[in-house]
This record gives sequence, C-alpha cells and structure tokens, in this order.
Amino acid sequence: MAVDSGAIFAEKAIVRIAHGGTVRFGLMNGGRIRLYEGSPFSGGQLGKQYAALKDARLLAPCRPSKIVCVGRNYAAHARELGNEVPDETPIIFLKPPTTVIAPGETIRRPPGATRVDHEAELGVVMARRCRKVEPEEALAYVLGYTCVNDVTERDLQKADVQWTRAKSFDTFCPLGPCIALNLEPQDLYVRCLLDGHLKQDGHTSDQIFPVARLISFISKVMTLNPGDVIATGTPEGVGPMKAGQEVVIEVENLGRLINTVEDGK
Amino acid sequence: MAVDSGAIFAEKAIVRIAHGGTVRFGLMNGGRIRLYEGSPFSGGQLGKQYAALKDARLLAPCRPSKIVCVGRNYAAHARELGNEVPDETPIIFLKPPTTVIAPGETIRRPPGATRVDHEAELGVVMARRCRKVEPEEALAYVLGYTCVNDVTERDLQKADVQWTRAKSFDTFCPLGPCIALNLEPQDLYVRCLLDGHLKQDGHTSDQIFPVARLISFISKVMTLNPGDVIATGTPEGVGPMKAGQEVVIEVENLGRLINTVEDGK
Repeated sequence: MAVDSGAIFAEKAIVRIAHGGTVRFGLMNGGRIRLYEGSPFSGGQLGKQYAALKDARLLAPCRPSKIVCVGRNYAAHARELGNEVPDETPIIFLKPPTTVIAPGETIRRPPGATRVDHEAELGVVMARRCRKVEPEEALAYVLGYTCVNDVTERDLQKADVQWTRAKSFDTFCPLGPCIALNLEPQDLYVRCLLDGHLKQDGHTSDQIFPVARLISFISKVMTLNPGDVIATGTPEGVGPMKAGQEVVIEVENLGRLINTVEDGK
Repeated sequence: MAVDSGAIFAEKAIVRIAHGGTVRFGLMNGGRIRLYEGSPFSGGQLGKQYAALKDARLLAPCRPSKIVCVGRNYAAHARELGNEVPDETPIIFLKPPTTVIAPGETIRRPPGATRVDHEAELGVVMARRCRKVEPEEALAYVLGYTCVNDVTERDLQKADVQWTRAKSFDTFCPLGPCIALNLEPQDLYVRCLLDGHLKQDGHTSDQIFPVARLISFISKVMTLNPGDVIATGTPEGVGPMKAGQEVVIEVENLGRLINTVEDGK
C-alpha cells in the first residue's frame, strides 16, 4: 500500500519502499522519505534524494535471511493455550523467508485450514552480524523494531507437535510498517485489532525473556545476520481470523501493520 | 578442501568452488571443471573456461534460502529413537542457512553439548521456483542431489520438544561435495562412516515418503526457491561424534561428504 504516515508512529523510522520502479530504503522525516544510497544493512548511507509518501509503496522493511521466533514468552499466553511457562530456556523456532508479506498484502488461509490465528509480536531487526553476545551488549546489535504477525494454523500446530508446518505457510509473516529506531523494547504495548475489535493487548514488560536475553540466547546457537528478525513472542488473546477480515498489529511508538485475510487456493 | 575427484562419484555433477579469488559454479567433466558464466540457479550457462581440480577449493554446492528437513522418514530410525512412524503426514522442520558448511570444514560441538549426532541424508537441490506441485510433476523442479549431514544435539532435541535449537547451531549442516545430476532418488544407498567405521547404511527405497511426495507436500506449505535444499530424513544408526573424529556421509552414485569434528568455544 502507499505509505501512510498515520500508520507510522515512530519519530525516527526506516522504511523500505517501491519507488520509481526500484526498491529503496528511506528514513521517514517530517512527512517525506529521505532515501538511502544502498542498504542500511550493508553500509549504505542517507543520500540527498527524497520521495513523497504518495509516490511510494511500502514493502516489508527488511528481507531476513532467517526469522527466529520465540514461543510462550508471555506467561498469560502460555496459560491460555494450556501450556507450562518456560523458566530457564526460551523456546525457539523458525519461519522461512517465504512467509514474509508487506503491509497491505493479503494473508492467505491455506485450503483446508480450520483455525488460522493472529499473533501480535514485537519484532527485532538486527543491524550487524551477531554471534555469541552477552545480554549486556546485545542491544548494540539491533537496528530497530517492527511489528510481526506470527500467523499460525493452530490445529496443525497441535497435531504436528513440531510447529514448523503450522507457522510456515506462504503469507504467514506480515512485517512492518517500518523499522522504528530508538525504542525502549521492554516498555511497549503490543496489540492486535481484528476488524477494529481489540483482541490482544499486552505489554513487553511482561515478557519472560526480555529482548537482550533473547538475542544473547539465540546468538549462542546461530549467527544472526543484518536484517534477520527475531519475533519475541505473543501476549494472550490469540484467536482465529476469517476471510474478509482486517487484522492490525500495533506496537506503541512504532506503528500499525495492517493486512487483510482471504481464503487461499 | 581442494576438489578431490575421488570424492565425487557422479558422472555428471555441478560443483561450487573458490577459484582465482572468485566463487564459481562448474560442471565436473573428465577430471576438469568447466565453469558456468553466472549461476545455474539464475539462468547461468556453461562457458568456455575450465579450472583444474588442484586450483579449486570446494564450497557447499549451493546457498539455500531455506533448508527443509524431514523427520522420521525411515521406519527403522524412528523406532531406534523410540518414536512412532508417521503414516500420513511428513514431519518437517527448518535449519537456518547459517548452519551450512563446506566439505572439509569443521563441525563444532557447542560448549556444554552432551551428544552431537551425525545424521546421513540424501539432499534434494531445487532448480526452479516451486509452489503447490503434485508428486507426478515434482521431480521436474529438481536440479540434483547432494549429501547432507543433519547434525543434531540429541539431548537438547529431547529436552526442548521443538527441534529447532538442537538442529540449528552454526556448522550443523555440512553440504556437498556436489550436486549430482540424473540420479534415481529412490534407488540409493545412504551411509555414514565415523573414523572409517560404518555407522549408518540405509537405502532410499526404505523412505516412508519418497522425494516426489516430500516436494509436493512441502510446496503446498511454502514456495521452494532455486537452491533450496530438502534433507529427506536419516536411516537408522545415528550416534554421537567426538572431537577429533572424521565423519563421512556417502550417497551411492553421488559422492562422499567429509568433515571433521571439534569442540567449539
């Protein structure tokens, strides 16, 4: 969709846009977009060109080589699905890059799906290569934050035991609208609205494992690369989405990620 | 390591090599390597240049955007770990691209690891974008086959329930030595040798879900891209690897993937 500055709350945010037949990164700046020369993930710097919001179409704000997700990172959500709350070790899983869609794009319910749920999450976008960092230094590797909808086929998730299939269908990872800079990751409301009705309303201060600990834990398993995304878990209130509905993931001081839902073929 | 034509059994095979300061794809051809102009995954064609084996260092044969693995695809292996044999639905999971290492590189056991197992597997390398294909047409999307060692921290796999962490440590996916063309995927011995001792000795005719069905199943979940790899499951005989050991994954008519094991820091 065209860039809607009303959906971006952050004072300082990086967007990725389709503009004049090319894909560019830009910095939102007083209703205009100042374009990068190259990519901020590989040393690109802000240039002298600007784009008007109306001439730009918002894309997913990065192209992760991997999306690392965290399960049951809010105690109330773990309980609502009848699960134990992890105490020492985060539960991690992966979504493939082919799940990513942009703001405004359509989440497609797979044929035969019985329950396709929204999961509103704070996403962490890595700035730099990161391997075996301690929590104290972890946030220095973060470029910024984005909204993630960790879409999940709940009945398959239960049936399969392994969560991969239920989380990996094409279109199951809306990302955006921007990468917000200078946020305090443990002081943010994370919400989901379905057709305007508030369904999830959590706060990152309730995360069992805060962002710095998650980055440290994950980086001791796998090297994180620039543009990789960590989805930090969803608060309580998950529930099904039906064809024709509009789903909004909203993170305080960041923005609003809006997508529609259809039945796929 | 330098290209060892003795480790490549396939009559026709694509290799990826470091050569003269660049990374090139090549076709093994009578003890020489005929170089591609560009990548066979994006329309590149064979050119007129050749490289000598001794001047080339073998790399992982592709750079997958995702590695989709299949669990318990040989009944005898499912039973050896005390698990039920899947009947209708393959179990899939993902390894991140950061797990990939080349032939000759070192598998690093994570600090504190208690049991790091080899899993010899036939790997499928996709040639073309592939979405929602039927089994009958699935093999037309395959470029060729490679050896995969789906290295697994067995104790973490059991403790975590989700397999992702146990399968995702850096260096946990040796790939190679080549992409063998024109193989019959359901008629191949798949073996693991540890310090020369035969540990796994399976045959792909014993796969519960053959390659064509796996591709079809996975492609109905997620779009497969050129260079993506499917690891088709391991036969019985998995077991631990210790520092200082040499592990060989061998697939009949394909080649031998050789790596060493060290304790990581």
